[in-house]
Amino acid sequence: MCVSPEVDIKPIGTVRKVSGGKSIIHLSEDLLDGLNSLRPGGFVDVLYWMHELSGRHRQVLQVHPQGNRNKPRQGVFSLRSPMRPNPIGVSRVEVVAIEGVRVTVKGLDAKEGSPVLDIKAASR
Amino acid sequence: MCVSPEVDIKPIGTVRKVSGGKSIIHLSEDLLDGLNSLRPGGFVDVLYWMHELSGRHRQVLQVHPQGNRNKPRQGVFSLRSPMRPNPIGVSRVEVVAIEGVRVTVKGLDAKEGSPVLDIKAASR
Repeated sequence: MCVSPEVDIKPIGTVRKVSGGKSIIHLSEDLLDGLNSLRPGGFVDVLYWMHELSGRHRQVLQVHPQGNRNKPRQGVFSLRSPMRPNPIGVSRVEVVAIEGVRVTVKGLDAKEGSPVLDIKAASR
Repeated sequence: MCVSPEVDIKPIGTVRKVSGGKSIIHLSEDLLDGLNSLRPGGFVDVLYWMHELSGRHRQVLQVHPQGNRNKPRQGVFSLRSPMRPNPIGVSRVEVVAIEGVRVTVKGLDAKEGSPVLDIKAASR
């Protein structure tokens, strides 16, 4: 089902988890040229789809911050909780290595198999 | 056409431009509860769809930084250029006012009519 045809996101790749806090972003082969000038040591913002939360979790609009029930519920737009109508994650990560269309990064929160939506140079 | 049914983004609202560098995010009425605890003076990251770049621009994988032809072309994943396979913008903005589902923010790059995909508390 395609609810919003005007926003037709095409994943650019997939997250593969490796060890030691590092992940590999496996980009589509046809996007290789877009990696030009990306260098190890640089920081990027990775946008990814939290596919494991793409079901009924999307209807949750208020949660306890950090899942702590002692804290009163807040609206999801005032938090960075993964629960939200569009479960898009944004993680700032360090580029560790680039081999062809495989980009190894450090510090990516995304789960194995998450579709990657974008990679942007980190701002500020 | 829905190319990636597994990433079914539903816009949560629309950008309406107002004067003085301020914009109004007009959220869907059914998402009001998600705004709970958001306060004027706080900062949020707004994710939006750059709908005016959703055509052939998505195939551009290398551009001159800042459009400056004296600078060699770079891959779009090493830049924050709006040209990219998925034209998703991420802007850190200040919340100025909240009235019902209308959130006024300062500093949003998005154009009038841009579908809004997410609002997250600013990190760091």
